[in-house]
Amino acid sequence: MSSDMSEHKKAVGEYAAERFIDSGMRVGLGTGSTAVHFIRRLGELIADGDISDIRGVSTSSQSLLEARAAGIGVFDLDDPTVDGELDIVVDGADEVDPQRNLTKGGGGALLMEKIVAHAARRVVIVCDEGKLVENLGIGFPIAVEIVREARLTASRAIQRLGGRPQLRLAQRKMGAVITDGGHMILDVAFERPFDPVAMEAEINAIPGVVENGLFTRCNPHVIVARADGELSEMKPAARS
Amino acid sequence: MSSDMSEHKKAVGEYAAERFIDSGMRVGLGTGSTAVHFIRRLGELIADGDISDIRGVSTSSQSLLEARAAGIGVFDLDDPTVDGELDIVVDGADEVDPQRNLTKGGGGALLMEKIVAHAARRVVIVCDEGKLVENLGIGFPIAVEIVREARLTASRAIQRLGGRPQLRLAQRKMGAVITDGGHMILDVAFERPFDPVAMEAEINAIPGVVENGLFTRCNPHVIVARADGELSEMKPAARS
Repeated sequence: MSSDMSEHKKAVGEYAAERFIDSGMRVGLGTGSTAVHFIRRLGELIADGDISDIRGVSTSSQSLLEARAAGIGVFDLDDPTVDGELDIVVDGADEVDPQRNLTKGGGGALLMEKIVAHAARRVVIVCDEGKLVENLGIGFPIAVEIVREARLTASRAIQRLGGRPQLRLAQRKMGAVITDGGHMILDVAFERPFDPVAMEAEINAIPGVVENGLFTRCNPHVIVARADGELSEMKPAARS
Repeated sequence: MSSDMSEHKKAVGEYAAERFIDSGMRVGLGTGSTAVHFIRRLGELIADGDISDIRGVSTSSQSLLEARAAGIGVFDLDDPTVDGELDIVVDGADEVDPQRNLTKGGGGALLMEKIVAHAARRVVIVCDEGKLVENLGIGFPIAVEIVREARLTASRAIQRLGGRPQLRLAQRKMGAVITDGGHMILDVAFERPFDPVAMEAEINAIPGVVENGLFTRCNPHVIVARADGELSEMKPAARS
């Protein structure tokens, strides 16, 4: 990635903190190289006294550590002061299609990211324009979090759905990546376009699949950092 | 339970070992108070030299320990000699409806039980007639295995599906039951009948749900121990 694009990711993350977060909010803290700038800017806004009484809920060990470093109070989702409901989550994405279906999971945090998005009244996605695609799962694999006993059986079931699964291997640790939840990840490449809504449900119906990286039900507000340095938006329909 | 019914459960478990298991089979070893008699009888048949070359795959820490005690060789499902495929699994059930849909999970082993059933060419269920019901989930709750971060959000999503979830609490350990996979269990009672096939998929689509105890896709052969001491059978349709 060009250093320019890194600057753009920083800009869009910081913009989300400034535009969408108000005092008193319960805020989901996303994971990844763009969301981290949201967290850091949110910490600055709190430190400067611009906003107060923020209760953060992290989506990963990464966002937890970043939030701690930024001075943001982090709570469990079932803490009584959060009570399983968030006003907003700001997170990144691996790919975004024209219907604002997303894939997430390149960072291995898809399980908690999906739980947090499910708990949030409003989902804001920050990304760069390189993430915009016509069809999900072709250029960037779909992450599927599995219990380790299902590695072979889930892989074959995924092949029957048209995907090519590959166990994600770790770096700085031998063997497989182990997620924050103690599971493994299959990265699943597809050669042909598919219906994301149906595929999300079909993959989750495979025994041993904990969650998958297709996000088709969160009706997000997507903020896109373009290569020319401008921001563009894909706005949600009214949420039921 | 009457001591008579205990005898009947023993009889049906032992019958399954004698009738369905041949030398050379890869065999899923079920969990619970009836399946344990299958495991013990299988061990006797091996010790007596009646059958040989059995590769067992356990569905729980219980069935693993029983198999070890019975002298049955236990393999991982992805061991090359098993290769993710089983000839048969013999397991119990909490409830069985007239379409041979099942619920399992009273023993907390539903996740591995479903992975193993999914891997098996033939599923044999051994139970007593007290397990036969018109509608699943009314008299005996549906077990839903969740990651702990989703306790509140998944509980509410389940309520929207018409269920009343209750966190399963442990005995001989304070707090929640933790499954062999490191997750928690919600026991979900329903007041009204529901479509088991749709409900299985809908519960699994809730973020943070690992698996649920509805088994609607395994086309089992059900052997029922009746109170009069006879066995009756519910046979599968031809499997695709």
